[in-house]
Parts: sequence; C-alpha cells; structure tokens
Amino acid sequence: MTTDAHRPTDDRPAGADDALELLGLVAQLEHIAFVRLAADSAIAPDVEQRLALSRFAAAAVERRDRVIARIVELGGDAARLLGEFDDVLEEFDARTQPSTWWERLLKAYVGYGVADDFCRLAALALDDRSRQVVLEVLEDASHAELAVAELDAAGSQDDVLSSRLALWGRRLVGEALSVVQRIIAQRPGLARLAHEGQLAQHADDVAGQAAEPAQGAAPDARPVGNAPAKIFGELTAQHTRRMSRLGLTA
Amino acid sequence: MTTDAHRPTDDRPAGADDALELLGLVAQLEHIAFVRLAADSAIAPDVEQRLALSRFAAAAVERRDRVIARIVELGGDAARLLGEFDDVLEEFDARTQPSTWWERLLKAYVGYGVADDFCRLAALALDDRSRQVVLEVLEDASHAELAVAELDAAGSQDDVLSSRLALWGRRLVGEALSVVQRIIAQRPGLARLAHEGQLAQHADDVAGQAAEPAQGAAPDARPVGNAPAKIFGELTAQHTRRMSRLGLTA
Repeated sequence: MTTDAHRPTDDRPAGADDALELLGLVAQLEHIAFVRLAADSAIAPDVEQRLALSRFAAAAVERRDRVIARIVELGGDAARLLGEFDDVLEEFDARTQPSTWWERLLKAYVGYGVADDFCRLAALALDDRSRQVVLEVLEDASHAELAVAELDAAGSQDDVLSSRLALWGRRLVGEALSVVQRIIAQRPGLARLAHEGQLAQHADDVAGQAAEPAQGAAPDARPVGNAPAKIFGELTAQHTRRMSRLGLTA
Repeated sequence: MTTDAHRPTDDRPAGADDALELLGLVAQLEHIAFVRLAADSAIAPDVEQRLALSRFAAAAVERRDRVIARIVELGGDAARLLGEFDDVLEEFDARTQPSTWWERLLKAYVGYGVADDFCRLAALALDDRSRQVVLEVLEDASHAELAVAELDAAGSQDDVLSSRLALWGRRLVGEALSVVQRIIAQRPGLARLAHEGQLAQHADDVAGQAAEPAQGAAPDARPVGNAPAKIFGELTAQHTRRMSRLGLTA
C-alpha cells in the first residue's frame, strides 16, 4: 500500500519509479515464460502438446504486453526496464538446466513460481491500477496447471522419479531464492516494495490485529530490519505448498 | 472453384477431403512460422526486436488456430492433418540452415513465401469459406514486412551482402520448389487443388477470354497434363517479384 504523502504534483502515483522496476520484472518474467513455452512447443513429443504449448506461449506474450501497457501509462521505457533483468534471469537459467522433460516442467512450475510469488508480494505495495495488472497477469498463468497435471500423473506411478524430482525441486528453490536475494540487494526500489508488501500481507493475515500497519508510514524512512528473512520465509512456505500439490517433499 | 455438382448430401462442401489436406498444410506452415519467429525472438540482438518478434509469433498462433477452427468445422482431425507435413517441412528446414541473421530473414521471406504462394494458388479451388480463411491468413503475414525493411536497408549499403543473399535466394527457391514438387507427387488431393487453382487464376487473368473454364469441369476426370510446369512457372515468377522488391537478382 503506497501512501499519498509523497504523491508528486503530476499524474504519476507515489512510488512510480519503484512500480516501474517491479512492472519491468514481471514483464520480463512473462517474456521468459514465452521463450520457454515456445521452446517446449518446438520439442514436445506430440502435435497436441505442441499446439497447447504454443497457445500458452502466445498467452504469455499477451500478459507481458498488458504489463508493458501499464509501464507506458506510467511513462516508463519498457525495453530498458525489461532489459535490466536479463543478466540475473539468464544466470538462473544457466544454473538450472533441466536434463529431462519432467525437470523442465518442474522448473517452469517451481522455479518461476518463486519469482511469481515474490512479484505478488511486492505488488501488494503498488498503486491500485498497477497492483491489479500484476495480480491479474500472475493469476492468469494457466500453463502451470498443465505442468501440475502431467507431473502429478507421472510421479504418482514412479517413486524413483518422485525422489529425483524432489531433489531437483530443492535445487530450483535454492537457486530461485538466491535470485530474489540478489534482486533485493541490487534494487532498493524492489526491496522497498517487497518489504511493504510483506507488511501489508501480514496486516491482512492478522486481520486488523495490532500488527504494524502498512499504511501511512513513509517507506524510505522505515528500517528494513529482518524483512528479507520474513520474505524468504513466506516464499519458502509457498514453495512447500507447491511441492505438496505434486506429492513431492520440499 | 469447386462445383456444386458433386456436393454430397451432408453439410460438407464438395472436395472437403482435399480442402482438409490444404488446410492442414496451411496450419502447419503457420505453426512453423510460430516456432521460427519465437526462436528469432529468443536470439534477436535487442529488446525491441525481441518484443516485436514475439508478437509476430503470437499472431502466427492465432492465424494457425483460425485455420484449425475451419478444419474442425469440416470434421477434420487437426493434429493428424498438421502432423502429416512434419517430414517434408523438416527436411526443407534441415537443407536450408541459415548461417547469418540476414540469411535467416531471407529464408522466412523467400523460402516460406514459395509455400505460401502454392497454398494461395491451391486455395482458389476451395469452397468459399475455406478459401476465405486461407487467403485472409496468408494475407495477414505482417512479419514479412519487417524482413523486407531490414533486408532492404542492409543490402542497399553492401554489394557483397547483396550478391551473397541473391545466391542464398536461389538456393532457397530451388529447395522450396522441390518441396512443392514432392507434395504434389505424394498428395493427389493437393495436386488437384493446385491444378484447379492454376486454371482458375488463368481464367481470371485472361478476364473472360476463351481459356479453359475452371468451373463446371469434374476435377477428377481432367488430365493433369503440364499443370505442374505451369504451377512452377507461376511460383517462380512470384519468387522473382519478391526478390526484386529487395533489390536482389532472382
């Protein structure tokens, strides 16, 4: 929840620069989803899967462009903002090269799931319109369902595969969390949003109890404290839930 | 132009089986365009190009799905029909591996241009609705304009590049025409459509003169004669026009 205290005199919402960073990250994640799904489509074993995956790839382009439209509304330079996350995400990709189709599916679901959760958390601190765009876009990732269904069907019949995938899942979440750590360390704007988002979520969770209110505090003045630890706790908990959905040990 | 004389008693237009073959080919060509554009997007030198190419890739999915919708209307099995052209198109791809970005662009424009022209010609012999879908889909290939603009700008400043690309263009058209030849030899349905389409176009060209009328003749009964030579003549002429647009010698 951004405060109105720092709202500039023009039309841009308070914290627009921070918002642009997060929107750039979300757009780049959707763009990467497109690249990955298109490559999956090119190598998928049968025509039906190729068709389905190409449709998911096209949908990722559409989601990315919804985020880009919001970037443009806020006066941002989309190409520059997306480009800024190239390195960190390429490094993640290079460090987590799947060796089987199942590892590839799990990477899509679990690896990028962590990044999506981080964005969801930080989005809680955005202006209303940007928050709505980000949450809708992340909600809309229907291709994850395909991964869940396929992984669930495959793993339930194969204990060896299940324990290999559980190991791969731990590797993925470790690498994904270290990406989040680097992003928080390198980008104060995203660190602020994630911190505020985490507080907002906590405030929601305790449903009006005495917890530190997220609204009304000036974000820049607030010490970050052990916020990263809380954020990582949150992301890890969601990872565990995600693995359980597949019947895998986190 | 199909005739009504052979219309079966159900709702399927005359020649629906031939139409399904052509629709399968067009859908598969659009699917391949998606795969190629997505791969281009992943390796494009800058973010703006990556964004533009991913949008073209998504548009190819949408075009392919318009053709698939028509296949479904005609009661066809889309996955099977698309899959039937895998081999011949993969062989073309393997025989024409571009070694530079420019060769890649020219392949998209010239190599698949020949296939598109073949489909356009054969589409003239389809039932009205199928013809409309195919011609609209092939019309809509806006990504070709990008290739033309880039190639034109690059070639006009570089004579060595121009003569290399002219050579590459001849290679591409040779391979593309031999794909068409194989398709005509292996698929009597497509051979019939191409022949009828060629006659229909000729009849249009001579604008009501005494040329052999395309309508009213039973396609199956008509000898194919030197139709392939005429079709290749037509495709080659269009290739020459396409190369001239780029200032390249065909």
